[in-house]
Amino acid sequence: MRIVSGMRPTGKLHLGHYLGVLKNWVNLQENNECHFFVADWHALSTSYEDKLNLRLLGKELVKDWIAAGIDPEKSALFVQSAIKEHAELYVLLNMITPLGWLERNPTYKDQLAQMQHKDIHTAGFLTYPVLQAADIILYQADVVPIGEDQKPHLEITREIVRRFHHLFNCEVFKEPKEMLTQTSRLLGLDGRKMSKSYNNAIFLSDTPEEVWQKLRGAKTDTQRVRRNDPGNPDVCLVYDYHKALTDNATVEQIANECRAGTIGCFDCKKICANSIENLLEPMRERRAKLDDDTIDGIIEKGNKIAKEEAAKTMEKANKAVFEISCEI
Amino acid sequence: MRIVSGMRPTGKLHLGHYLGVLKNWVNLQENNECHFFVADWHALSTSYEDKLNLRLLGKELVKDWIAAGIDPEKSALFVQSAIKEHAELYVLLNMITPLGWLERNPTYKDQLAQMQHKDIHTAGFLTYPVLQAADIILYQADVVPIGEDQKPHLEITREIVRRFHHLFNCEVFKEPKEMLTQTSRLLGLDGRKMSKSYNNAIFLSDTPEEVWQKLRGAKTDTQRVRRNDPGNPDVCLVYDYHKALTDNATVEQIANECRAGTIGCFDCKKICANSIENLLEPMRERRAKLDDDTIDGIIEKGNKIAKEEAAKTMEKANKAVFEISCEI
Ligand code: SF4
Ligand code: SF4
Repeated sequence: MRIVSGMRPTGKLHLGHYLGVLKNWVNLQENNECHFFVADWHALSTSYEDKLNLRLLGKELVKDWIAAGIDPEKSALFVQSAIKEHAELYVLLNMITPLGWLERNPTYKDQLAQMQHKDIHTAGFLTYPVLQAADIILYQADVVPIGEDQKPHLEITREIVRRFHHLFNCEVFKEPKEMLTQTSRLLGLDGRKMSKSYNNAIFLSDTPEEVWQKLRGAKTDTQRVRRNDPGNPDVCLVYDYHKALTDNATVEQIANECRAGTIGCFDCKKICANSIENLLEPMRERRAKLDDDTIDGIIEKGNKIAKEEAAKTMEKANKAVFEISCEI
Repeated sequence: MRIVSGMRPTGKLHLGHYLGVLKNWVNLQENNECHFFVADWHALSTSYEDKLNLRLLGKELVKDWIAAGIDPEKSALFVQSAIKEHAELYVLLNMITPLGWLERNPTYKDQLAQMQHKDIHTAGFLTYPVLQAADIILYQADVVPIGEDQKPHLEITREIVRRFHHLFNCEVFKEPKEMLTQTSRLLGLDGRKMSKSYNNAIFLSDTPEEVWQKLRGAKTDTQRVRRNDPGNPDVCLVYDYHKALTDNATVEQIANECRAGTIGCFDCKKICANSIENLLEPMRERRAKLDDDTIDGIIEKGNKIAKEEAAKTMEKANKAVFEISCEI
């Protein structure tokens, strides 16, 4: 199956990104034709005031992907803004997209409410689902992995496809299906949402020392004062990390020993650090082999693949729109 | 001065188009660097349901231009949708354009009210001034010839330019000035607005016979029953055509003779037909030399010029946006 998915280049990736998105991508690439792109135009829709070097962040993002196990031999990794066809299709789709679809989109309203610290009452943010539709259908995606909150957007994509086909009397695009993915529920090490800005996240590029420093300071069951007090893993952040990263048998054992007061939090965190290292160490090895030229080459190759496919789709789309002629 | 102006390819041009727009273009090209483009994406914003072959209409439009005296050696004639940079810049500008600027635009509200027979409550129609801004600033236009109703749009263009420069701390674009042009007040030969759909227009491509047929049936002073009744040129459509197309001395003479009842409407129309022929005959001669290959070649050449300049501007714009780096 053809799968298309993008990520915004807003900074280095942490465990939450890995567990929520990348782990899934790594699995998907085995049996599917995957297109993963750096959504730099999308990043602008919410970060145009932030003076981010999105070009650099994009390369860092691809480096994070490959370190995390995305294989550029299996998947096309490319940069959205390098493929002008996204913009071209976005223009066409905007022309046929009723404003009401965008204004009534529940995710749009939620985000406006959530991001009141940012000025996102812009044309770009309102029409962001149209650009997203272009991203997907340009590559004739069969399936798009999305979180629950993205469901209304994908429905808009499908509605746009149907409207295009109806208006221009030509079935140019595939109607993409959704693959619902669990977003990571892992909190930051201070109990708040995991976020770069809270400085509470373990990054995929952290050194073992950085990981341990962060983990050592993590909140555990605050009721536990002495080492052999019985603890409650269900109120402990570290235990959440174990559930996400440690093997099931060990997780069960830890829960029992914590409740019995036979394991100390320090030792428990050591085991947790070990689990994290099991994940991050191979990433570090892969990362060590990636210099800037390698990344540039990978992106160049991915862009070329994407560009070719996008151009093919646009030829059909433009024929349908500008010549009212259908060649599938 | 660099001048940029576009026209929508919605059908063959008539006298109103010539007097309102083309005549001005023909004059401007003498002392300016003019870029005239087929606004096919803009045409979609209001005609996406009309199944127009915009590719063909675009070529016909360029043929009309050249027939009317636009010189492809002096001006670049190109097709908007062939220059993907318009779409690329439109994406960027959308990201920074407040919705309020578009929603409060008085022309937007007027047009929504006027075009109630069309479904233009779309993202494309709302953001049409953003695409227009891209069209203009992509070529670093000094001046844009516009009608009164387009003033709010050009003001939005200037506001977008200033916002871009402020946000990305880099003066990438020129702030275009307006050149107010008189829109043609010439009515159709039935007294209604001149329009293809009313079948009341004299087309630039009409034969002498077609011109005369249309003119012969035109309404004159309806109070004038007999040939030597005194007439009132001020209520006569044909007189409006004289004022637009006949030399001043003759126009004055006609007014006097009409008021005195010494000229018949038939003869008066013959003089008018002659004035129209003086305009259209050279157009026919130029048109006769234009085959499809010539037009294709002219558009190809214009596209190439436009593409090069657009790419140069986009390189600066993308550097400013994606790398927060300013190279002017
Ligand atoms: S032993 Fe482990 S699970 Fe129990 S409170 Fe301490 S860190 Fe948490
Ligand atoms: S003479 Fe000419 S100006 Fe007078 S009413 Fe007839 S057509 Fe009109």
